[in-house]
Amino acid sequence: MNTTTNYDKTAPESGGGAAPSTLPPNFFRLDLILRLFVFASTVSALVVLVTSKDTETIATGFPPPFASVTRDAKFNYSPAVIYLLVALAVAILYSIITIIGSCSLASRPAPSTKILFNLIVFDTLMAGILASATGSVGSVAYLGLRGNTHTNWNKVCNVFGKFCKHIGSSTVVTLAATIGLILLVVLSSYSLYRRSR
Amino acid sequence: MNTTTNYDKTAPESGGGAAPSTLPPNFFRLDLILRLFVFASTVSALVVLVTSKDTETIATGFPPPFASVTRDAKFNYSPAVIYLLVALAVAILYSIITIIGSCSLASRPAPSTKILFNLIVFDTLMAGILASATGSVGSVAYLGLRGNTHTNWNKVCNVFGKFCKHIGSSTVVTLAATIGLILLVVLSSYSLYRRSR
Repeated sequence: MNTTTNYDKTAPESGGGAAPSTLPPNFFRLDLILRLFVFASTVSALVVLVTSKDTETIATGFPPPFASVTRDAKFNYSPAVIYLLVALAVAILYSIITIIGSCSLASRPAPSTKILFNLIVFDTLMAGILASATGSVGSVAYLGLRGNTHTNWNKVCNVFGKFCKHIGSSTVVTLAATIGLILLVVLSSYSLYRRSR
Repeated sequence: MNTTTNYDKTAPESGGGAAPSTLPPNFFRLDLILRLFVFASTVSALVVLVTSKDTETIATGFPPPFASVTRDAKFNYSPAVIYLLVALAVAILYSIITIIGSCSLASRPAPSTKILFNLIVFDTLMAGILASATGSVGSVAYLGLRGNTHTNWNKVCNVFGKFCKHIGSSTVVTLAATIGLILLVVLSSYSLYRRSR
């Protein structure tokens, strides 16, 4: 059978007969920097989210003692924000584990291909979870900012400004962490590609 | 320098001195099945989304001719649903391109590693986009189903039942497509891993 011809053509250097003389590419430092970035952004997003409690005194138009009413906005009032909180907590835990793993690999010339494969799989999963959490909170935050006249959902950000700023910042920072994880997938798969036959 | 020892140990078969005698693994058929699944699910999600228009006659309690009012719910009333629509359209286009590419690779014994690397990168991106769209529409659909007493956002699914069913089904099917894309990333990276030195 001659079916291997096409394949051999794509990787002529593998048939040289000698063990690989050059070291495989090692993107350990870039990997660690990206993982630290993901860790820092998820931690800051979580802190901003948890400290988003906002208490406002709203004038009612009635005479005293009913002239004003105190209302508060907390992150646990919306299921979408609770989902973001859980996703961020999982991402922080995952970041810590992978940073420790990344540091322990520093002494090696290159991580094993099995580790790279596992990193691609779990980074993709984490990126998917964070992306869906970003989307869910983003749409609720947009509703709070603009409201929706078709469903009579009034905007709330004109009252709870601090709360909305915190939720919005947290969403943007989570988006940055998601992009960091996608870049990690690209890096790991590029590393695997450079080491493929 | 003796730093390559650890690396060589992980892949002893590559130092055999001979050109690879076994064919590289080819998951073309599984890849094509998964891509067809992603295509079918995104198309059905888009169709369900576009046909979600619901017109309801709501009793107002006033005497005739004001006894009832006709209200409709359409997908373009919510920015989150429009985002899902655009994401689905992009995913369908992407699916068609990759299915054609996948078929054209069928004659080869195995796809080149460069193609596998590119597939991982773009599949991850598409999965991220679909995941965020699923999250954004999911949270809005949940608001429509349950409402939110803290923000006085009343539920709307008790009135527009057909609309909510369509949006909900579309979200679930999009989630299935996202999982399909993540499985494609796993498959491509496994294929790359099996061909790594």
